[in-house]
Amino acid sequence: MNEKKVIGEKALEYVKDGMVVGLGTGSTAYYFTSKLGELVQQGLNIKGVPTSKKTETLANELGIPLVSFNEIEKIDLAVDGADEVDADLNLIKGGGGALLREKIIAASAKTFIVIADSHKNVDTLGTFPLPVEVVPFGLEMTIKHIRDLGGKTELRQQQGKPFLTDNGNYILDTNFQEIKEPKELEKKLNLIPGVVDNGLFVGMADAVITIIDKKLVTVFRK
Amino acid sequence: MNEKKVIGEKALEYVKDGMVVGLGTGSTAYYFTSKLGELVQQGLNIKGVPTSKKTETLANELGIPLVSFNEIEKIDLAVDGADEVDADLNLIKGGGGALLREKIIAASAKTFIVIADSHKNVDTLGTFPLPVEVVPFGLEMTIKHIRDLGGKTELRQQQGKPFLTDNGNYILDTNFQEIKEPKELEKKLNLIPGVVDNGLFVGMADAVITIIDKKLVTVFRK
Repeated sequence: MNEKKVIGEKALEYVKDGMVVGLGTGSTAYYFTSKLGELVQQGLNIKGVPTSKKTETLANELGIPLVSFNEIEKIDLAVDGADEVDADLNLIKGGGGALLREKIIAASAKTFIVIADSHKNVDTLGTFPLPVEVVPFGLEMTIKHIRDLGGKTELRQQQGKPFLTDNGNYILDTNFQEIKEPKELEKKLNLIPGVVDNGLFVGMADAVITIIDKKLVTVFRK
Repeated sequence: MNEKKVIGEKALEYVKDGMVVGLGTGSTAYYFTSKLGELVQQGLNIKGVPTSKKTETLANELGIPLVSFNEIEKIDLAVDGADEVDADLNLIKGGGGALLREKIIAASAKTFIVIADSHKNVDTLGTFPLPVEVVPFGLEMTIKHIRDLGGKTELRQQQGKPFLTDNGNYILDTNFQEIKEPKELEKKLNLIPGVVDNGLFVGMADAVITIIDKKLVTVFRK
């Protein structure tokens, strides 16, 4: 079974005619957006808000009408992947580098649906290094503050240079081993001057579509 | 009495030979940096870290040797102005648009001295609109989240266009009327995706040099 395809396409159930839909980034979101493109070709009337330049390009190729974030009043539904999902539906996101836009869109959506294959389910977050988006200025001091919280940082590279986000910032992939209190860590990180945001999405997901024991399931937030 | 000059120059007392000194931005910090330049010409050996491009230019003109933030292990002393100071030495900063760099440097300094003329002293913060630095993406949604916290935002303009910070972000000058719980508000604002940081400096200042009842005083944090 192609888990990512099955899960990504399952999320289409949440899409209704007339909605403004946040379009996630990543390999599972790809299948959601692709199928959405087919439905648009068949007459579905929705508008998309892409979470990254990559998704914007894909949506344009598929003929999905896009709307600028600043033209809309609200987002009805956002659908996006995750790098880790715990039992309380807290997430680590940002492996793809688009965490800030993804978080802005998730926080603005009435309903936020996560699509995550079985490998993303964990008891405790933290095996996947947490992406932390930081301004380039003062990088070394920001790293020190993050280390004070117990994180081991690695500056994300691309072709031998620091990777730049769509917002012109750096990403520190940060290993905290086990993140036992994600809400606390999210706060502490965001209070460090120089940290723009981090990949912890706490209490944001309304449901996660995933595979458990080879079964396709939707897990709702308690 | 030129309050700003008296106060700015008083802060020189904290400077010792061999220090790395964070150099603030604004009209009071100008007098500190100018006098520091004189002392450097007379043989004082310090290195400066400017909080803005404007201060960097001034320091260069004065012959103050500068060091890149990423070359140093620590900042011994930071001296900077403020837009408002309350009785607990909490601050509103960022009227000059350099709040993020100022906050990064203040957070990295062993000692942080604020220089503020008598008009800056208030019982409760909030008469001065709080500057909030935000990423341009998703601006309208970020404004909505800030309004949910009770703030009335105004996008800072310069020559008919949105003002851009040194980090390429926007500033929302935000009127909260009275900020009774600055620590809480600082946290809540920084948890909004899209907010990079805000001008509340809570528990950071070690002392404030100011004028009270026409007397030059240093007020220490309790």
